[in-house]
Amino acid sequence: MSDQMQEIVLAARPTGAPGPEHFRLETAAIPTPAEGEIAVRVHYMSLDPYMRGRMDDGKSYAAPVPIGGRMEGGGVGEVIASNADGFQPGDFVFGMFGWATHATADAKMCRKIDPTQAPITTALGVLGMPGFTGWHGLMEYGRPKAGETLVVAAATGPVGSMVGQLAKEMGLTTIGIAGGADKCALATETFGFDHCLDHRAYDNGRALQAALKEVAPKGIDIYFENVGGKVLEAVIPLMNPFGRIPICGMISWYNSGGLGAGASTEGLPMPKLWRTILVNFLSVNGFIISNHWDRYPAFLGEVAPKVLSGDIKVVEDIAEGLENAPTAFMGLLEGKNRGKQIVKVI
Amino acid sequence: MSDQMQEIVLAARPTGAPGPEHFRLETAAIPTPAEGEIAVRVHYMSLDPYMRGRMDDGKSYAAPVPIGGRMEGGGVGEVIASNADGFQPGDFVFGMFGWATHATADAKMCRKIDPTQAPITTALGVLGMPGFTGWHGLMEYGRPKAGETLVVAAATGPVGSMVGQLAKEMGLTTIGIAGGADKCALATETFGFDHCLDHRAYDNGRALQAALKEVAPKGIDIYFENVGGKVLEAVIPLMNPFGRIPICGMISWYNSGGLGAGASTEGLPMPKLWRTILVNFLSVNGFIISNHWDRYPAFLGEVAPKVLSGDIKVVEDIAEGLENAPTAFMGLLEGKNRGKQIVKVI
Repeated sequence: MSDQMQEIVLAARPTGAPGPEHFRLETAAIPTPAEGEIAVRVHYMSLDPYMRGRMDDGKSYAAPVPIGGRMEGGGVGEVIASNADGFQPGDFVFGMFGWATHATADAKMCRKIDPTQAPITTALGVLGMPGFTGWHGLMEYGRPKAGETLVVAAATGPVGSMVGQLAKEMGLTTIGIAGGADKCALATETFGFDHCLDHRAYDNGRALQAALKEVAPKGIDIYFENVGGKVLEAVIPLMNPFGRIPICGMISWYNSGGLGAGASTEGLPMPKLWRTILVNFLSVNGFIISNHWDRYPAFLGEVAPKVLSGDIKVVEDIAEGLENAPTAFMGLLEGKNRGKQIVKVI
Repeated sequence: MSDQMQEIVLAARPTGAPGPEHFRLETAAIPTPAEGEIAVRVHYMSLDPYMRGRMDDGKSYAAPVPIGGRMEGGGVGEVIASNADGFQPGDFVFGMFGWATHATADAKMCRKIDPTQAPITTALGVLGMPGFTGWHGLMEYGRPKAGETLVVAAATGPVGSMVGQLAKEMGLTTIGIAGGADKCALATETFGFDHCLDHRAYDNGRALQAALKEVAPKGIDIYFENVGGKVLEAVIPLMNPFGRIPICGMISWYNSGGLGAGASTEGLPMPKLWRTILVNFLSVNGFIISNHWDRYPAFLGEVAPKVLSGDIKVVEDIAEGLENAPTAFMGLLEGKNRGKQIVKVI
């Protein structure tokens, strides 16, 4: 086994959609764990929309990745050396290892996983941050009630598909929005959405709104927001009184080169949005799941059995090789993936 | 006593600020109460910003006032005839009697008040809908904690002054925003705000924001929203993580002639607002107090003793005569009142 490892660093900051020139593959020595750390060989890493935010300099949840720094992200792997109590070589762990074949990490920030209980890739999607995001946002801020109508975009992604499946099980009418007929078929046939609209078939928010009105004749009670843009514009005027909007992301704007630019929301000026929140008594909550790890055991206890029983379906897109992570990530931002986007690192 | 009464009806719908031509004083016979109704001689009526919304045709909380229909509003008066159990001539009641010297009303929608306990005008302001709005919005959606910083505009009005006084008592730093040096002095000297900024001294949201930053060096935890416009633009970038924004109104836009027009919020495009809610984990809740009457006894129980003891201060502007209600209302929308605007009807 070589003592060399590979990682992908941020070569330059993109202003719009990232390209290959914004990433660089580098080789380094496999590091040795310091006191309290473990060293891990990464098997699978996750690709998620939030990573686009880390490439920018602006204010966000977290500090940006520095130029020349390793791209951030979660992964699952095997402990190869431990300098921390409770971790042994051979243990499987989830941690924020970044885009790399190997990493050291503070053991307290890593979570052991049991590879005999569920495929380890599920720790990146349905039973990881995305699935947990969907569950927490829906339950805590969405407060679903049987008979209500829910809309979520990126319906076949790991957040949207979790939200849709949980809501359907609770007796809501579920409407997904996705890009392309294939994804819409996946949403209704595999994830059980009552309806799925292909946002590419509608030029603007107004057209999408008319289509939504057809499938949501009683209005919308919960809009689980992960995209922004024209979906937001289409949904807001259809919100019912006392509606809830959990916000976990707004991917449609991530590549738009700065706030406001390129966001196709001419039909939803700020005062109109604000006034709708008032006159329809809406509850709007932004959140990031990393503030809510105290709820993770409750999530796993409720959802893991449903994944193992097959009641919650799992769809994963797995790219092969760390060197292909940038291409897979660019595809993710363009909606090319069908399900949860993962990279098989080694 | 004459059997004639007077009322003010909506003569035409304004497109911007209302003028005298949008109101008309009419004379009619004093009506007789039907089964379950009472007839009331109105002593005082309330003027509130929400009434501007009722003059428009657009979607809002409630149906618009029809052309030729009586202007809506709450009042306090004396029962002159009763066709309902539990109400006697001579009782004092609060109800939605409209802009009128006399009215009949469904007794179930009226609330008896005790004129020996507190001045009856307080049922229109500090112990009525505005005070209740401030209390409920702050407690339910603002969730104040000692040491935090709160901002509220229209700081000397009946909502803002309630919010500021309750928050101050709970150990928050309170920052009011008001129009003019006189009102700012009233806010700090009478209502105990730590600071009050005169919004007229700042040309736009950016300038107001710089001033707010000086008096809120730790950022803003609660923005009690009742104005919109440049105050909203100034506050949003200063919101702290996990901040709360109860929304009960947006008076700065009521006269702007339709949504989006005239709202000086160039610095706050919709995507920037939406993104701030996400990245700062904000909780935004629109509400109208009429959905929350179940909480009114709790409000009275907590706040009435503080009003009677003088811990909560009361400032009222009383216009004389029903015929002067339109002028007082136009002044209210321009911020000419100092405290709660009331009309002494008879």
